[in-house]
Amino acid sequence: MKHLLSAQDLTRDDAVRLLDVAQDFSDVANRSVPKLPTLRGVTMVNLFFEDSTRTRLSFEAAAKRLSADVMTFQVQGSSVSKGESLKDTAQTVEAMGADIIVVRHFSSGAAHRLAHSGWVEAAIINAGDGTHEHPTQALLDAATIRERLVSKARGSDLSGLHVAIVGDIAHSRVARSNVVLLNTLGARVTVVGPPELIPSGIEGWPVATSSDLDSVIDESPDAIMMLRIQKERIKGEFQPASGNYVRNYSLTKDRANRLAEHAIVMHPGPMNRGVEIASDVADSSRSVILDQVRNGVALRMAVLFEVWGGEK
Amino acid sequence: MKHLLSAQDLTRDDAVRLLDVAQDFSDVANRSVPKLPTLRGVTMVNLFFEDSTRTRLSFEAAAKRLSADVMTFQVQGSSVSKGESLKDTAQTVEAMGADIIVVRHFSSGAAHRLAHSGWVEAAIINAGDGTHEHPTQALLDAATIRERLVSKARGSDLSGLHVAIVGDIAHSRVARSNVVLLNTLGARVTVVGPPELIPSGIEGWPVATSSDLDSVIDESPDAIMMLRIQKERIKGEFQPASGNYVRNYSLTKDRANRLAEHAIVMHPGPMNRGVEIASDVADSSRSVILDQVRNGVALRMAVLFEVWGGEK
Amino acid sequence: MKHLLSAQDLTRDDAVRLLDVAQDFSDVANRSVPKLPTLRGVTMVNLFFEDSTRTRLSFEAAAKRLSADVMTFQVQGSSVSKGESLKDTAQTVEAMGADIIVVRHFSSGAAHRLAHSGWVEAAIINAGDGTHEHPTQALLDAATIRERLVSKARGSDLSGLHVAIVGDIAHSRVARSNVVLLNTLGARVTVVGPPELIPSGIEGWPVATSSDLDSVIDESPDAIMMLRIQKERIKGEFQPASGNYVRNYSLTKDRANRLAEHAIVMHPGPMNRGVEIASDVADSSRSVILDQVRNGVALRMAVLFEVWGGEK
Repeated sequence: MKHLLSAQDLTRDDAVRLLDVAQDFSDVANRSVPKLPTLRGVTMVNLFFEDSTRTRLSFEAAAKRLSADVMTFQVQGSSVSKGESLKDTAQTVEAMGADIIVVRHFSSGAAHRLAHSGWVEAAIINAGDGTHEHPTQALLDAATIRERLVSKARGSDLSGLHVAIVGDIAHSRVARSNVVLLNTLGARVTVVGPPELIPSGIEGWPVATSSDLDSVIDESPDAIMMLRIQKERIKGEFQPASGNYVRNYSLTKDRANRLAEHAIVMHPGPMNRGVEIASDVADSSRSVILDQVRNGVALRMAVLFEVWGGEK
Repeated sequence: MKHLLSAQDLTRDDAVRLLDVAQDFSDVANRSVPKLPTLRGVTMVNLFFEDSTRTRLSFEAAAKRLSADVMTFQVQGSSVSKGESLKDTAQTVEAMGADIIVVRHFSSGAAHRLAHSGWVEAAIINAGDGTHEHPTQALLDAATIRERLVSKARGSDLSGLHVAIVGDIAHSRVARSNVVLLNTLGARVTVVGPPELIPSGIEGWPVATSSDLDSVIDESPDAIMMLRIQKERIKGEFQPASGNYVRNYSLTKDRANRLAEHAIVMHPGPMNRGVEIASDVADSSRSVILDQVRNGVALRMAVLFEVWGGEK
Repeated sequence: MKHLLSAQDLTRDDAVRLLDVAQDFSDVANRSVPKLPTLRGVTMVNLFFEDSTRTRLSFEAAAKRLSADVMTFQVQGSSVSKGESLKDTAQTVEAMGADIIVVRHFSSGAAHRLAHSGWVEAAIINAGDGTHEHPTQALLDAATIRERLVSKARGSDLSGLHVAIVGDIAHSRVARSNVVLLNTLGARVTVVGPPELIPSGIEGWPVATSSDLDSVIDESPDAIMMLRIQKERIKGEFQPASGNYVRNYSLTKDRANRLAEHAIVMHPGPMNRGVEIASDVADSSRSVILDQVRNGVALRMAVLFEVWGGEK
């Protein structure tokens, strides 16, 4: 694996191997000195055209545990012209010694372009491109689902599980990557949201679609993934007279109580408590939200290892 | 010692031990390779809800000298809702591997809440919370006083010394932590400032109070600590006709000359030269302002060591 | 060499030695673990009063390859009063343990003042001061020219070569440092630009001057260095009716084709593609723009080594 650009590039076996390696790296965290010399002398650059403190720090933590050097190139979105700058910036970063470039960009396809335009030799990891993909998020979600719901996890996929993804499906790269990867791993997916937040081409996705959260909960999904809602997207509905979004699509305590006993609640963070998820649900024992963060570091260690050292 | 939240939590023996350990770490700075492997594999996160480059870098330098990994989570005050976000952010940071969280927050009590709400297991160090406390500043001030004024320093406290703290006592967490710690260590404290910058409950503090800097100088304090004045607090007095603050409370060359020969001049930085302190006083031989900065790194090494490895 | 403040301080032998050391460090980049323990325990602080992500990261990369600790003190230009703050900030940074201070400042002479005012003991490296100097840029440019155009490079200078520098000579510290260093190394320099962007004292510089790029190209320079044009400087000329700057001073494909076969094209970055340089020229085989970036890291390693460990 030279790059990680999209969940679509991963076969079932690729994905399962990454989850297995991440599981090994999770164990490293429990050692007294949780560091490995694996990537000593390797330079990872976080090349961020959009701010995301959490994703950036998760990659930074992963790289440091593998003893890589980390540099951050944070570009203010406004000061960058959109076309050539990605190329010039990436080539500059590589010329400074970047072996692995973790790129977040506001344009869908930016990571793919970096990897396949012949601009740089570095390994490219997509940390979110426009509304397109966020593959490491999908992988860490899969790692978390497998850890909690698959008894003999190592080597296994997610066959037979049913995952509901709730919220702004249309604008979410997290949803898009998850739909692809969950299918690859054998899970069944239902996306749920108000019609205006369901993308127009949804018929071509390998998912069931619903605008009725309550009936989806009655189907007893094994995992329910609540997406962060951009408040500006539901502004109209926050009017006193409506409050529709929260009423119809928030994971309230009542709804959570109707889930199967083993079902888990997920959220990619940061949460709007009281909007897409009730605060006591986020803190309940079925919430795996912090496991997602913890697995994020291990999963990103696995990805760094695979794009760099895994094949050697 | 699991956390460092407040000068109030420190007994005399705790404080003296921290000063002693800091003194040992000071010696490390003089080695050809001034690093210790003590905290290798430990991750310290600077979680800053308020900007403070100096405090952040001082903790960063301390952590690096002890071979810890350092990450910075800088939160823009504006984009954070005050209640739950502290919890979610801290839990996220811990899930990414933080063993020690150094927190600066605009709300008094934030560090205490982090340590005692059961949200995280990490060791918490208060790097300033609202107008409440800044305990590492008080400790580094005590280390500097002891280094300069107590002949056989190791194991000693500050008994018999008189310290004057001058300026905006009401809004200063530095003043608050210093008053507590200096008392714990046996020093006598006088706070000095215009009545409107003396807090209303001052009668309950173990200090003498004055609004007359000149008469306090006549008492020959051993150390005089000038606080940074927020210019917006004394705006009215900067009018050409008044200039009261500078006239009455600035440590001018004339005032400094009337101090005892051994007396030291302190300032937590950054200084407003020409406002609370005259430029030539700041640069004079009785100024220990840069010793405070230097001791800050050693003292924070001691605190990191104590909250993490000291008991092992 | 205790500091690096100005290209003017370098003798021919100093400069040649730095290029030779940089060449050695270039080889380090090709090792499987491209790190040296040379500066272990040394703290380099990037003290930046002006933002420059590229220069900052280049120094950071250089320091990390030599195993130094790196801290960044980024000062927002607006919040700093110009005189004393440089002193107080630098002294604070040194008291925190800085051994080497890399300073970028909006005032010409800032680095020199830091090095010679007795404020700090640290080694000072000028990373750009106002419109004055940017000596590491000139050195990395010389390293790149030598690498490409001098057959037996080690120990050699640039005698006999002709370099044209094109653009806003008046406001460019890159131009200023290059003119000095290229002369020191025996090269002949022609500066080219519209009369309003040629500095008034140009008669005193050891250069030929021209406002006619085409005739300079006819002289067959060995290297042509295109400076970044600040768009606000040529705003008037961007009017549809004029377009003078691009027409007269851009390195177009046609102009590049008229250069000698061996001639190289340089740019300090970041480029305005389509303004001072045509996009296909920037990407052509005679462009050494990314070599400049790559050599920048090696050259800065050499400078760090010389100011710190070179003499020991």
